[in-house]
Amino acid sequence: MNHIQRPTSINVLANLPSNLPNELFTTLLEADQFRIERIVSHGHASPEDFWYDQDQNEWVLVLKGAAKLQFEDNIMTLNAGEFVNIPAHTKHRVAWITVDEPTIWLAIYYGDAK
Amino acid sequence: MNHIQRPTSINVLANLPSNLPNELFTTLLEADQFRIERIVSHGHASPEDFWYDQDQNEWVLVLKGAAKLQFEDNIMTLNAGEFVNIPAHTKHRVAWITVDEPTIWLAIYYGDAK
Repeated sequence: MNHIQRPTSINVLANLPSNLPNELFTTLLEADQFRIERIVSHGHASPEDFWYDQDQNEWVLVLKGAAKLQFEDNIMTLNAGEFVNIPAHTKHRVAWITVDEPTIWLAIYYGDAK
Repeated sequence: MNHIQRPTSINVLANLPSNLPNELFTTLLEADQFRIERIVSHGHASPEDFWYDQDQNEWVLVLKGAAKLQFEDNIMTLNAGEFVNIPAHTKHRVAWITVDEPTIWLAIYYGDAK
């Protein structure tokens, strides 16, 4: 393979729908061992008592906006430019997220631990 | 492993040295199958006639700034938020990069094709 794969229609910081009733997930790259996604959240904190409990590790970077991630034993604020590596089956939820502007995440899922 | 690994000292958009004689490479995550790096360039276009020819694929996103990537048959402008997937052994070079501000890249190297 010697092909430059460029989805020219996607600027990860742009192309944001003006109305976002749900979080928006866009796959940017699907490789054998990992997947890169853009996630756009606009006031979409996790429902109370909801916890993510994923089979894959997740490395996630806030590109724009801010959020508070809650873990079982602490809460972590993530501003634009900050990232965290969340091992598989580490329970977490979005405790708070910007409502005045969309928060844009870059997430990398890897290492299926099933 | 159930440990939240967070290098609290790194905000990928901050912690930029004021004087940058060379490109700055910082590994953000080293996983089995891929590596995530931040690259900070400040006027560091590739030397003339220099081409990257890498054993790994590289998915690269411009977080801040802008650059022109040259391939053997075309030149591609990448502004903040734009990305490109460069297959292993696709020759490329940085033809131009911002000089008025640092350009910050997020690069993911994967799939050793040696």
